[in-house]
Amino acid sequence: MTAYAQLIRHLQETDHLGAAARLLQWDQETGMPAGGESHRADALSTLAKLIHERTVSAEFADLAAKATARASGPDESRQMELVNRDLDRARKIPSRLVEETTRATSLAQQVWARTKREQDFKTFQPHLEKVVELKREEGSLLAPDTGTAYDGLLSDYERGMDTSDWTRLFDELERELPGMVSEIVERQKSTAERLDGIAALKGPFPKDAQMELNRRLAEALGYDFGRGRLDLSAHPFSETIHAGDSRITTRIDESELTGSVYSTLHETGHALYEQGLPEELAGTPLGMYCSMSVHESQSRLWENLVGRSDAFWQELWPVACTACPALEQVAMEDWIAHSRRVKRSLIRTESDEATYNLHVLVRFRLEKAMVLGDLQVADLPGAWNEAYRNMLGIEPPHVGLGCMQDVHWSAGLFGYFPTYTLGNLLSAQLYRSAAKAGATSDRATLLSWLRANIHAKARRFETPDLIEQATGERPTARYFLAHLRSRYLG
Amino acid sequence: MTAYAQLIRHLQETDHLGAAARLLQWDQETGMPAGGESHRADALSTLAKLIHERTVSAEFADLAAKATARASGPDESRQMELVNRDLDRARKIPSRLVEETTRATSLAQQVWARTKREQDFKTFQPHLEKVVELKREEGSLLAPDTGTAYDGLLSDYERGMDTSDWTRLFDELERELPGMVSEIVERQKSTAERLDGIAALKGPFPKDAQMELNRRLAEALGYDFGRGRLDLSAHPFSETIHAGDSRITTRIDESELTGSVYSTLHETGHALYEQGLPEELAGTPLGMYCSMSVHESQSRLWENLVGRSDAFWQELWPVACTACPALEQVAMEDWIAHSRRVKRSLIRTESDEATYNLHVLVRFRLEKAMVLGDLQVADLPGAWNEAYRNMLGIEPPHVGLGCMQDVHWSAGLFGYFPTYTLGNLLSAQLYRSAAKAGATSDRATLLSWLRANIHAKARRFETPDLIEQATGERPTARYFLAHLRSRYLG
Repeated sequence: MTAYAQLIRHLQETDHLGAAARLLQWDQETGMPAGGESHRADALSTLAKLIHERTVSAEFADLAAKATARASGPDESRQMELVNRDLDRARKIPSRLVEETTRATSLAQQVWARTKREQDFKTFQPHLEKVVELKREEGSLLAPDTGTAYDGLLSDYERGMDTSDWTRLFDELERELPGMVSEIVERQKSTAERLDGIAALKGPFPKDAQMELNRRLAEALGYDFGRGRLDLSAHPFSETIHAGDSRITTRIDESELTGSVYSTLHETGHALYEQGLPEELAGTPLGMYCSMSVHESQSRLWENLVGRSDAFWQELWPVACTACPALEQVAMEDWIAHSRRVKRSLIRTESDEATYNLHVLVRFRLEKAMVLGDLQVADLPGAWNEAYRNMLGIEPPHVGLGCMQDVHWSAGLFGYFPTYTLGNLLSAQLYRSAAKAGATSDRATLLSWLRANIHAKARRFETPDLIEQATGERPTARYFLAHLRSRYLG
Repeated sequence: MTAYAQLIRHLQETDHLGAAARLLQWDQETGMPAGGESHRADALSTLAKLIHERTVSAEFADLAAKATARASGPDESRQMELVNRDLDRARKIPSRLVEETTRATSLAQQVWARTKREQDFKTFQPHLEKVVELKREEGSLLAPDTGTAYDGLLSDYERGMDTSDWTRLFDELERELPGMVSEIVERQKSTAERLDGIAALKGPFPKDAQMELNRRLAEALGYDFGRGRLDLSAHPFSETIHAGDSRITTRIDESELTGSVYSTLHETGHALYEQGLPEELAGTPLGMYCSMSVHESQSRLWENLVGRSDAFWQELWPVACTACPALEQVAMEDWIAHSRRVKRSLIRTESDEATYNLHVLVRFRLEKAMVLGDLQVADLPGAWNEAYRNMLGIEPPHVGLGCMQDVHWSAGLFGYFPTYTLGNLLSAQLYRSAAKAGATSDRATLLSWLRANIHAKARRFETPDLIEQATGERPTARYFLAHLRSRYLG
């Protein structure tokens, strides 16, 4: 057995522990009885520790050094580049910090779920403070020489981009988006009033019918249920347990259908990417998705570019009405108009494709300030409300609709929100290139184009390079803004 | 941190890997997409390897030695006795034998699954011979000084009992049971004919209604759904993922209701035991259930002693009819009589409480004879059929319904079948003591009695001692036979 083969085996075994941790996590979100909370947190913490120990073990470092010296061909070289990058990262973070973060975030997420319902920020606050403190420490350890703790966290999610790239993209959006949103809202005024008067859009849409519809739509995008499943959870997500098992979840509100439909299309987009990764590289760094942003570009492409188009509903309307008969009371044109309503709203996950990035902008500014110590966690609710007033012209009535709406921060995901916006920008950029290549005429052809240009390439390239290969350009906000203009102001 | 505290932590961390493995397994049986099969098997195999490595590591042996030297108080001493027992066991069995047995049983199970379908004992025979030979060797290594190889295997499942104890119990059953079964079958003849003619007992009982009924029944026994859940699987089982999360499954056949009801009551009985174990000892040998037999006594007590009683259905019949309206077509008295039908049948897992132990008796005699060399594997089919003729008065038409029906022997489980029967005997012995203490008037009081006398004691005592503390007597068949007499011949 060569050193490289031994290394691959070691990586795959570590990923088996990862698979176990992902299933423990998936189960915690979908069906674990509440009584298991603290023991589940302990089990997850031990797994994270063992994974970390394997990753920083002398045995693994030794194998990596030997395999690096003899790596041959571009795949082996890239594999070793990624392995050595992870090794460097792991060397920087002590296992004490890894364990503490796992325990703190697992607990904070559980407390978040409860206190969000009770609109009780005070009880949640010390948990979030602990998480911010731990992430600040982590960010400082990861930061490039001249960078801040927030740079460190950002670079952890997106290698090819530095803070100035991010600032440039967000500034570009901030210049154009608020005005564009005002224009769209004005343009949609009479349609909006008309849609508000349509009782059939308010359901009830029974849970089982919604689930059936969601299953049909996921299938229509090309999702393989033989290698996945659809469940309910408080916050929709997608998770790959291991190759051959990429799961999605949704949530149901019987008085509203677009919520579950578009979250399902979104998570299906993520899962399609996972189902398209090369199985022969499974369990290794090279076999993973390129980046969070590219992942989000896949979910957004299917959710927005495809899922809110006329062509999509013209084809799938009969299927939708069969699965969810309450839709028969709705005119297809109204449904499409309804799916494209632009509204200044409080909840990011329910926001439309035009205002969405304003929600992210708020989070980008606030999380950066918290990590850098410019904003105290205690002051978060007030700062949040002020930012929403400024950016969206509305203010949350309570923290459940305000700064406690997302699970992310309690899960320690700082530096993660910006990747959502980059994903949105890339979805439009990729879709435009697929269209130019004639690959948007039907969903199967579009999926093949994405399989060839994005999925099959796994993690062989950094985001900007992968995007340049697929579209001929580095990441830009241009096509996203053009898409909004064409769909909403055309 | 004391050596003892370090040891406990090591044990708990190993159990966290166990928890992950148990969830991967539970998920595989309940909802994993088929595409995940081979990667799931790889993940489970890696976890088993890592758990084994931790258990036989020099670090752990060293910790155990230090902790043993300083153990103080009965709990620490008993904890160390159990830890050292596992270590001694591992030292007695050379890894060559462990590996050979793993390979032989893995192969034998695969061959068994195929040859059982094809009713081909000849092809299976050399594989079973190999397993018997290896288990004989293992039994000799585990046997006490004056004991046989079969004593060694029996003691691996049940420490406090030797072969003469087992022989005494089975002899007692053999003297009384066959005659008693004849008498019961004769007594039930006209009722059986009448029940066969009742169409409503053959359903259909829709799946959702059965699940609702099973949920209500589990709750009625005291099962805490806040620390568990009920799902579907091909074969019903109960599994504790970790403390606070003890799950059960059932299977549904819409043409038959007693199958899912009694398997649910059975698995609920197992889970009630798990939910009653002291949480502060979780993840350590001392915090586990006492033995396989005591576990089975809990499932059988709720399934048979409680679940087939008049009082149980008199109270729960309205609940059952509400959950499963198809039951309204059935008279309660017929349902109870139906749940108590005694039939001489070929398949152990489908047999009633009166004939069940005759099935085990056959297996006890035959596996003992095979391990001791008194019966050649080649002669097993003939010996099996003869034993069924003598014991149950019926003969299997082929080996698939005969000596090849159970997976146990191909999996190397020799000495395991007897624990099923001991569990049945103990269920009656315990129920009778609870009744004498006035604890059987309602289910909550009965559960409290079991919590105090069995569950809370975890693995502090060996089976015969635990039973003597709870009932004032060593394990005996007397109360089980008395129960059958009273219920079926009273």
